[in-house]
Amino acid sequence: MNSGASEPALIGLDWGTSSLRAFLINGRGEVLDKMFSPEGIMSVSDRNFEAVFDKLIGHWLSAGELPILASGMITSRNGWVETPYEHLPLDADTLARALVTHKTECGVELRFVTGVTTEDESGPDVMRGEETQIIGASALGMSDGVFVMPGTHSKWISVSNGRIEDYSTYMTGEIYAALKGHTILGTLIEDGPFSEEGFDLGVAAGLTSKSHLLHDLFHVRTLPLMGKIEGSMVADYLSGMLIGSEISAEMDNRAAEETITIIGRNDLADRYEIALAAAGLQSRRAPDDIVAMGHFSIARSAGLLS
Amino acid sequence: MNSGASEPALIGLDWGTSSLRAFLINGRGEVLDKMFSPEGIMSVSDRNFEAVFDKLIGHWLSAGELPILASGMITSRNGWVETPYEHLPLDADTLARALVTHKTECGVELRFVTGVTTEDESGPDVMRGEETQIIGASALGMSDGVFVMPGTHSKWISVSNGRIEDYSTYMTGEIYAALKGHTILGTLIEDGPFSEEGFDLGVAAGLTSKSHLLHDLFHVRTLPLMGKIEGSMVADYLSGMLIGSEISAEMDNRAAEETITIIGRNDLADRYEIALAAAGLQSRRAPDDIVAMGHFSIARSAGLLS
Repeated sequence: MNSGASEPALIGLDWGTSSLRAFLINGRGEVLDKMFSPEGIMSVSDRNFEAVFDKLIGHWLSAGELPILASGMITSRNGWVETPYEHLPLDADTLARALVTHKTECGVELRFVTGVTTEDESGPDVMRGEETQIIGASALGMSDGVFVMPGTHSKWISVSNGRIEDYSTYMTGEIYAALKGHTILGTLIEDGPFSEEGFDLGVAAGLTSKSHLLHDLFHVRTLPLMGKIEGSMVADYLSGMLIGSEISAEMDNRAAEETITIIGRNDLADRYEIALAAAGLQSRRAPDDIVAMGHFSIARSAGLLS
Repeated sequence: MNSGASEPALIGLDWGTSSLRAFLINGRGEVLDKMFSPEGIMSVSDRNFEAVFDKLIGHWLSAGELPILASGMITSRNGWVETPYEHLPLDADTLARALVTHKTECGVELRFVTGVTTEDESGPDVMRGEETQIIGASALGMSDGVFVMPGTHSKWISVSNGRIEDYSTYMTGEIYAALKGHTILGTLIEDGPFSEEGFDLGVAAGLTSKSHLLHDLFHVRTLPLMGKIEGSMVADYLSGMLIGSEISAEMDNRAAEETITIIGRNDLADRYEIALAAAGLQSRRAPDDIVAMGHFSIARSAGLLS
């Protein structure tokens, strides 16, 4: 068994909509080397994913055959190979059994980690990629509880005994961008550094907004119009209101006394930490590159590391 | 007193963000003639409002001096003359006392009907123009109850004894356009005629959405993605969800047993009629051109018609 600390044992790809991260991983799940490319699936010309793959990590392949796992939107309809969704609850074993193997034109074998679906009373939910990060966090001992993954489509994920039990998506990040860029709410925004005062006020409004978001969003215009907040606070007021509304919705769904683990970019994690505290919730941060540990756990479950 | 049915007694202008409507009104408040221009305040070049005014209704001025009332976004910061906001409650007398007179470069006297502000626990609300329509509806005998004015910024207005007591703005129309045009929710939309089935499903989801709109909106993507609704239903599902959410928020605020009067464009009024019925609410429609009756009522209160 290849368990040496300096010997590569696995390649993991986290290939999303807007970027591609690749990890060279040893037999203990540690990252030996990593590569980054802005070529997310939406910016790969002619859907020539193999060319991007070869260019970014071809040099890792020359040393010999390693198992390769890829997760993320790369398995969606607009990706390399569309794979079916798995259902909840699930763990590393479930995802290992569901791996979809694909041979490239150069004869390299890739295994795709498939996405996950669930359904609540009003409709289905889908994710591709986040499940692998959660499996990684779980393998790192952050096993149980609630995880939040802020972003374009924010995910809240419940984990119990190392299994993903439930999750919900919120379009917070994408709606923020659309409202800021394409409605009257953007017109009174003055650029500047993060306004914690504006953000805090927005969070407070969002946490109490209940079902009135379509109304309360109008305050993002009227408050600066009436001189009640500064133009430099407006963007962060909007951000706070949306994040507060997201947290308020989750607090209806989940036990409030749990510690929430935040997974994501530092600037967004900062905002969620502030907003969760305002809601009376504890939070902690997951380490970087947990997705590589997720690839490692799934590969091990699939017997690919022996 | 000029009360002849065929003699002009007043000119009324309803000058909004995206259009200008002008009315020649007799001494009984009836419309003798009307003009329309797409030159709303945002499309008037160099803010030369007087040129647009002269071109559209100059021929009405040649016959002699008539009082002229103008309402709408024309009194906002981006309009001709910015006027202060009046506070609630108010009626035709209040608006008559608050008229702001302006003399054009050609010496024509205009009187601007000012806008209205109110405030709830989370922020201020503003309107300019809708108050004049409501005063008109009131003068036409649709005095008391709840009015909804669907549109870019939908307004819900409570009237009691001919006085505007309260109102709330919802950004429903503008948010619909931003989500459809500038988020992933637009990508699965197939154009086509109104899908009542899609709309009904969306209304049902919106009425029960409570504080979870940021989550439930993701179903506008996942339902067609998973083959649960047709692409041709998606736009109307989105529209229904937002209108349903707006109505649900209002039902938290107001007595549910009232008949709601709908003021607005026919296609939008149709949607609100369906959605209000789904929420168990009665509705009726206001006649066209009630804004001209509003101008008439305010002019009469101001003593401009004698």
